[in-house]
Amino acid sequence: MNRPYILVTNDDGISAPGINALIIQLKKIGDIAVVAPDTERSAVGHAITLSDPIRVSNFSKNGLWEGYAVSGMPADCVKIAVGALLKRRPNLVVSGINLGSNAGINVIYSGTVSAATEGTILGIPSIAISLTTYTDPIFDFAAKFAVKLAKIVLKRKLPEKTLLNVNVPNVAEKEIKGVQITRQGMANFAEYFDKRIDPRKRVYYWMDGEKEEIEMADDVDDEVIKNNMVSITPIKYDMTNYESIERLKTWLPELDSNE
Amino acid sequence: MNRPYILVTNDDGISAPGINALIIQLKKIGDIAVVAPDTERSAVGHAITLSDPIRVSNFSKNGLWEGYAVSGMPADCVKIAVGALLKRRPNLVVSGINLGSNAGINVIYSGTVSAATEGTILGIPSIAISLTTYTDPIFDFAAKFAVKLAKIVLKRKLPEKTLLNVNVPNVAEKEIKGVQITRQGMANFAEYFDKRIDPRKRVYYWMDGEKEEIEMADDVDDEVIKNNMVSITPIKYDMTNYESIERLKTWLPELDSNE
Repeated sequence: MNRPYILVTNDDGISAPGINALIIQLKKIGDIAVVAPDTERSAVGHAITLSDPIRVSNFSKNGLWEGYAVSGMPADCVKIAVGALLKRRPNLVVSGINLGSNAGINVIYSGTVSAATEGTILGIPSIAISLTTYTDPIFDFAAKFAVKLAKIVLKRKLPEKTLLNVNVPNVAEKEIKGVQITRQGMANFAEYFDKRIDPRKRVYYWMDGEKEEIEMADDVDDEVIKNNMVSITPIKYDMTNYESIERLKTWLPELDSNE
Repeated sequence: MNRPYILVTNDDGISAPGINALIIQLKKIGDIAVVAPDTERSAVGHAITLSDPIRVSNFSKNGLWEGYAVSGMPADCVKIAVGALLKRRPNLVVSGINLGSNAGINVIYSGTVSAATEGTILGIPSIAISLTTYTDPIFDFAAKFAVKLAKIVLKRKLPEKTLLNVNVPNVAEKEIKGVQITRQGMANFAEYFDKRIDPRKRVYYWMDGEKEEIEMADDVDDEVIKNNMVSITPIKYDMTNYESIERLKTWLPELDSNE
């Protein structure tokens, strides 16, 4: 196979160390295009920019690599890369390496995952990769793992409309206990709102919260990474709850009536 | 049953006509709390506000109803309503009435749906409701339909971790041909980027696009609304592609190896 053409993006912004670590490793197996947000866009979900113009500027990482910095969301970056900036269609999208795990309910909020979802929507095999820490990241193993997984994905293809959401424990390589295929955990956040008064005497709130550990089965993403294994979750953007369709059909007579 | 306590939100902003039409009807069956974005937040996906403080101000709709206007995303509104603003837990969340359908791939980008997803995450039965137009909306039938559906949801409960995504054709009530339980369509958008030069000679882009009509089966949301029927899609926020897990497990020997 020719060298694959790989689009790299993230939600921590084009200057973040995680995307640099990823690019340095992926360059070994492919030609790299970098199109990423110009600043951090975390917890933006699958937001896209329709009401504002999108700006694109050239970015150079100290001569190591070149890319495009985009004044938009992670999903915008993938859309504008494929739709306007790149001269040919990428063979793979890799989003990351994110600081902080994107497991469980975080999959819903994650900009990192949304970029990979966008690649999948555009019909390009896509991987999101996150590291389970906000401080003292050890990117080395995660970046090498991304390369290994990318090679397999390019060779074997992905299931239809499905991306891989990868979470890597932030430990030294020798402490990694293996790899597991997982499902998205359903543990909620216990949120609280910290109410404060600003210097102008006006009220504001900070949102904060902690994950409740209510679902710790062996095959759940959050549990697997806690046990120092790499978690790979297949994520599909068809959110239909097919099992419930027949039950809901029993509601139709009542909904169709004119009472 | 006592009068239910219903939280109403949207992504078009607290001043939008759609939320007003919804509130006027829902007031007939329950006590209403309104917590909605202070301005339009469309296509924000499941974004939440972690890096900025959240402001809340009182809002009055000409004495018809009172609410809270929030400087955040639709999902923030539901979180802060339940976590800080409301004195008791709502029995139901209704998000809408959105201007523009939220069917097919739009489910992923929709702020209207994300608010209902957030209600579901918090364990509260939730409905998102959208009208298939951007101009000349006829809210009357959609608002009355929301009441009818809300009554059934309160009585019969919803499947676990599942919200109802409702799309109503923008036609007169007598032209509505019925109600159907649907699945999320997988038709993509064909996007294009309109490249322009601003007065300061800098390049910018507008994103635009049209839905490709590649999947027009009878049970697909987009197709159903086109036929002047109301579409109700059960949406689950567990995005795991369970069918692919066994196939991906065959990759593990290769991923675990040290090559």
